[in-house]
Amino acid sequence: MNFLEERIVKDGIIKEGNVLKVDSFLNHQMDIALFEQIGEEFKRRFSQEKIDKILTIEASGIGIACVVARYFQVPVVFAKKSESVNIDGEMYIAEVESFTHKRKNQVIVSKKFLSSGENILLIDDFLANGCALQGLISIVTEAGANVAGIGIAIEKGFQVGGRMIRNLGYHLESLAIIDEMDAATGKFTFREV
Amino acid sequence: MNFLEERIVKDGIIKEGNVLKVDSFLNHQMDIALFEQIGEEFKRRFSQEKIDKILTIEASGIGIACVVARYFQVPVVFAKKSESVNIDGEMYIAEVESFTHKRKNQVIVSKKFLSSGENILLIDDFLANGCALQGLISIVTEAGANVAGIGIAIEKGFQVGGRMIRNLGYHLESLAIIDEMDAATGKFTFREV
Repeated sequence: MNFLEERIVKDGIIKEGNVLKVDSFLNHQMDIALFEQIGEEFKRRFSQEKIDKILTIEASGIGIACVVARYFQVPVVFAKKSESVNIDGEMYIAEVESFTHKRKNQVIVSKKFLSSGENILLIDDFLANGCALQGLISIVTEAGANVAGIGIAIEKGFQVGGRMIRNLGYHLESLAIIDEMDAATGKFTFREV
Repeated sequence: MNFLEERIVKDGIIKEGNVLKVDSFLNHQMDIALFEQIGEEFKRRFSQEKIDKILTIEASGIGIACVVARYFQVPVVFAKKSESVNIDGEMYIAEVESFTHKRKNQVIVSKKFLSSGENILLIDDFLANGCALQGLISIVTEAGANVAGIGIAIEKGFQVGGRMIRNLGYHLESLAIIDEMDAATGKFTFREV
């Protein structure tokens, strides 16, 4: 097990319905020393890629992205989520439909902060069905920029997002891929990569 | 002028109605090297305070808080904003009324992540009327924890938030206090501290 898998085993809580609570270290309370380990590991895994900028999505992606950015020495842009149209200058807007909630959400980035030809590293805390990520990829593509890589802390390997993103040919690195988790026993099965 | 005031003069855009756009470096695109300078400066200004944890609020406070946290070697907790009640376990909930929008919002933190007796540094990107900050202070107080300090990047000195927080006796440090800004000329007047 790597450092993140160990932490999930130690502090992650499995709830009924394949819900994983990691709010004590990842997405409500945030362990900055852990985020630094995540940053180092992404830097290693994406060492062959040229990265000009990191793009993430509010809210829980922002903390990881900002700590990871230090290892790449690049700025971070975070996409905003909105349920309604929000016109303030020129925006890239991707409409994404949530698989779980059947709700349509918008992912919004100002056109000023994504330029044609830029190499973008997408960072997020979680990948499950991949709806947020689909919105980010759509926006990067619309901007004429390049998805140089996708770095995820925890992937729920039993949901479709990761497979779909890999099938599309993107360089996706998930630091912990959970293939199974059992609320009754509290046991995790991680994918061997 | 300090480093942040210089950056505001260089890249901040004043819009009619006392609106300041700093989205190219602070709260949409984020300059991580600048956030590191902010972290160093807060560490210097709060060097006399014992800090156990940083508390901020989504979304734009998170990035600064996570970079600042490295200088204090403490975890970060971010409060969630919600327009409706959101019961998931035991939460501290502060109801705050926006001065500008007359709307009631809730500021929410899980009880697990704030403990009695902890020394909390509040961090946010902006202070104007101080509604978000009032919610955070209310929650820290309710938890029996101590507001050890409040670090703000940009304070709009012509709005009431800063004066009110100082009147209440809190140790508030704003790195740039704008006393006047003029949309017609683009000129800023910073408070000499």
